[in-house]
Amino acid sequence: MRKFKGNVTTPKGFSASGVIAGIRKKNKKDIALVYSETPCVAGATFTTNKVKAAPVVRDIEILKNGKPKHAVVLNSGIANACMGAQGVTDDLAMATATAEGLGCTADQVFTASTGVIGQPMPMNVILPGIHEACISLGSAEEDGLNAAQAIMTTDTVCKTVACQFTAEDEIEVTLGGMSKGSGMIHPNMATMLSVVTTDINIDEALLQEAVSQVVADTFNMISVDRDTSTNDTFIVLANGLAGNEKITKKNKVYEDFVLALFLVCKDLAMKMAKDGEGATKLLEVKVRHARTHEDAVKIAKAVISSNLVKAAFYGSDANWGRVLCAMGYSGGEFDPDKVDIYLQDGDDRYLLVKGGMAVDYSEEEATRLLSKEMMTFRINCNDGYEKATAWGCDLTYDYVKINGDYRS
Amino acid sequence: MRKFKGNVTTPKGFSASGVIAGIRKKNKKDIALVYSETPCVAGATFTTNKVKAAPVVRDIEILKNGKPKHAVVLNSGIANACMGAQGVTDDLAMATATAEGLGCTADQVFTASTGVIGQPMPMNVILPGIHEACISLGSAEEDGLNAAQAIMTTDTVCKTVACQFTAEDEIEVTLGGMSKGSGMIHPNMATMLSVVTTDINIDEALLQEAVSQVVADTFNMISVDRDTSTNDTFIVLANGLAGNEKITKKNKVYEDFVLALFLVCKDLAMKMAKDGEGATKLLEVKVRHARTHEDAVKIAKAVISSNLVKAAFYGSDANWGRVLCAMGYSGGEFDPDKVDIYLQDGDDRYLLVKGGMAVDYSEEEATRLLSKEMMTFRINCNDGYEKATAWGCDLTYDYVKINGDYRS
Repeated sequence: MRKFKGNVTTPKGFSASGVIAGIRKKNKKDIALVYSETPCVAGATFTTNKVKAAPVVRDIEILKNGKPKHAVVLNSGIANACMGAQGVTDDLAMATATAEGLGCTADQVFTASTGVIGQPMPMNVILPGIHEACISLGSAEEDGLNAAQAIMTTDTVCKTVACQFTAEDEIEVTLGGMSKGSGMIHPNMATMLSVVTTDINIDEALLQEAVSQVVADTFNMISVDRDTSTNDTFIVLANGLAGNEKITKKNKVYEDFVLALFLVCKDLAMKMAKDGEGATKLLEVKVRHARTHEDAVKIAKAVISSNLVKAAFYGSDANWGRVLCAMGYSGGEFDPDKVDIYLQDGDDRYLLVKGGMAVDYSEEEATRLLSKEMMTFRINCNDGYEKATAWGCDLTYDYVKINGDYRS
Repeated sequence: MRKFKGNVTTPKGFSASGVIAGIRKKNKKDIALVYSETPCVAGATFTTNKVKAAPVVRDIEILKNGKPKHAVVLNSGIANACMGAQGVTDDLAMATATAEGLGCTADQVFTASTGVIGQPMPMNVILPGIHEACISLGSAEEDGLNAAQAIMTTDTVCKTVACQFTAEDEIEVTLGGMSKGSGMIHPNMATMLSVVTTDINIDEALLQEAVSQVVADTFNMISVDRDTSTNDTFIVLANGLAGNEKITKKNKVYEDFVLALFLVCKDLAMKMAKDGEGATKLLEVKVRHARTHEDAVKIAKAVISSNLVKAAFYGSDANWGRVLCAMGYSGGEFDPDKVDIYLQDGDDRYLLVKGGMAVDYSEEEATRLLSKEMMTFRINCNDGYEKATAWGCDLTYDYVKINGDYRS
C-alpha cells in the first residue's frame, strides 16, 4: 500500500480536463470533467443540509438508477443552489450537454457545482465550456491537475493524491482523487467537492458501503467554520480495469481497498482543513480512551470547531481550559476529572493537563509547540476504549476578511 | 410598566459594592457584592456545560436548601474552573468570608466567578477584597454601578437596567439587573454572569418558573461565538419589600412580573450580544410563522451563530444564501420553497428573498441597511404560527485578536 502524487487520471482508463468557461472570472479554469469510457459503478455521499443545490438533488436520484456511470462534470463560481425550477433545468442541461459530448445518456453523468448561492447559472458560457471540456479530455497527469484546478474557489492549493495496493494475483489496484473546499466546511460534509476514481472491480453496493464508512472518519471529521453547505458532493467511480476478480464480499482485497480509500480521503480531508479559509496552521484533535465511539466523535468535533480554541491556536496560546470547556458542551459523555491533555508532535507528547487539572508545564515550551504548522491535541478520556480524530485550522483575521467580502 | 436606567440597588432594600482586590490587574474593580438584609427567595439558571466551575456546583446545591438567601458575591479575573478540590475549598472560603462580613451563613450566599480557566484563585487578595466589599456596601445608584463594573472582563460597556410596574393596590414593584459577558457566549448560557434584584413578594417555586421561562427567550437566544462556558450564572433575588400580597398563583401580578423580568433580561441580553468580543454591530434574527416553536428556535439560533452570516454582516454584504444555508443545517423543519427573507429596520421591511429565491432587490440599498448599528433579518417560514427571536453580532478581526491572546 503506497500513497503518492497523482490524481483522478492515475487509475487505468480515466481521463479528465479542466477549462476556462468564464463563469465568474476571465482567466480561471472553472469547468472540470472526469470520464471513463469503460462503464463504472459509483458510490457517493452528499450534503445533509435541508437546502440542497440542484445537482445534489439530481445526483442522489441517478445514483440509484442502476445504470453504469461514465462521468462527473463540475463547475466552480456559481453553486446553482436556491434557484428553483431554473436551477433544475440548468443542471439537467449541464448533464445533457456532457452526455452528448461523450456519447452516453444524461443519467449516466453526475453534476456538481460550487460557488455563490442564489445566482443564476450563466448557461451561455457554461454550455460552450462543457463542449470544450469534452474535446480536451486527456489521461495525462496534467489533465487530472487541470480538472483539480478547475474546481478551486477560495482554495489556495490544488488538492490531489493517489494510492496503490496489490490485490491477489499481483494485480495493481489504483485510486486517484481530487477535492476542493476551504470555507463552509464542517463535519457532515460542507462546501467540498471531491471525486475519486479507481480501477478496482467491485460490486456497487459494497462500494457504497466502503464510501460511507470512510467518509464518516475523514471528510465528516473536518471543520473550518461549522457551516455545512448546500452543495457537498463526494463521488467515487470504479471502472474495474485493474482486472481483479470482482469483489462481492468483504474479503482481504475489500479490506485493502477500504484502507486505500481511507488514506486517499484522509489526505484530501487534511489538505482541506489546512487550507481552511484564512488558516495558517493545521490542528488535529485525537480523542482516545473514550466510553463510546460516538462520545469520541462528539468531543473531537466540538474541540476542533470551537472558535475560542481556534483563535487561541492562532495565537499559539496553550489555552487548554477552552479545550476542556468545548468537551463539556460537546454532548459526549466523559468524566472531567479523568481527562489528560497533551500536545503531540509526531511521537513526542507534552503533558498539559492530568486528571482535569493543569500540570506544571512550561508556557514557553507549549507556545513553541503550538507555533508549528501542524499540532495535535491528544485528549485521553481514560474512561474506555474508543477513539476518534478530527482536523481543523486556526481562526484568523483573514477568515473574516475573506468572508466579509466573498461576493465582491 | 416602564424600563429605565437603574441597577441592582434600584429595588427596595438592596445594597451593593464593587472593589479592587487586585486579582489579575492592579486598577480594575474585580469583586462585586449584592446584598439584602431582608431575607430573599431566589431563582436561578446555570451553565449546561458538563465542566462546571466550583461556584456553579455549589450554587446549584444551595439553591435547593430552602433557606432564605441574602447575597451574591462575584469575582472577575479567575474563573475557578478545572481546579479540583482546591477550587471547591476556595469557593467555600469566598462564601464563608462573605457570610461573616454580612452576619449570615455561607449557605445563604451565592458565589460566581469569571475569567481564566484552570488557574488558582489568589485567595490572599480575594479574602481581603471580600472584607472590603462587605464594609463598602451602599444602596445608591453608584454602588450598583460599582458592582456592575467589578464583574466586567472583556466587556467594553457596563450593562445594567431597571424596570418598574404597578401591582394591585397601586404598589410599585421594581426590578434591577446587571450582567457581564461578551465572549464564550452562546445559546444555553455562556460566560455570562447576571444578577437581578427585585422587591416583589413571590413564592420561590413560582419565581423559579418565571426565571426559567424568561431565560429561554432571552439569555438562551444570544450567541457571540457558540462557546458555552463553564461558569454561566443567572440569579434573581426577591426580598418582598414592595409589599404586594405574596404571589402564590399565576395571577395578573405574576404575569406582569414575568413581562418585567423579560424586559430586563432582553435588555441585558441584547447589550451582551452588541458587546460581543470585537463586535461592531448588533444582529437580530426574527423567525416568524414557523411550524413549531422548537423549529423557530433552532432556525434562529443557527442563523445567528453562523460564522459566515456573521462575517458577511461585518462586510455589510446581503449574502442571504448563507442565511438560507444556515437554516438548512439548523435541524429545524421548514420548506425552503416557502421562505421569505427581509431586512427589517424598525417597522420598515426590505424584501430580499421570496419563496426561497432572490427577488430583484438593490445590493446598494441592502448594503446601506446592513451598515447600520443594528439590523434584523426577518425570516418568514410561511408554514405555521410559531416564532422565535435571537440576537448576535458580527464576526470581526478584533474577535480573533481578543481571543488570540486573551491570557496575555
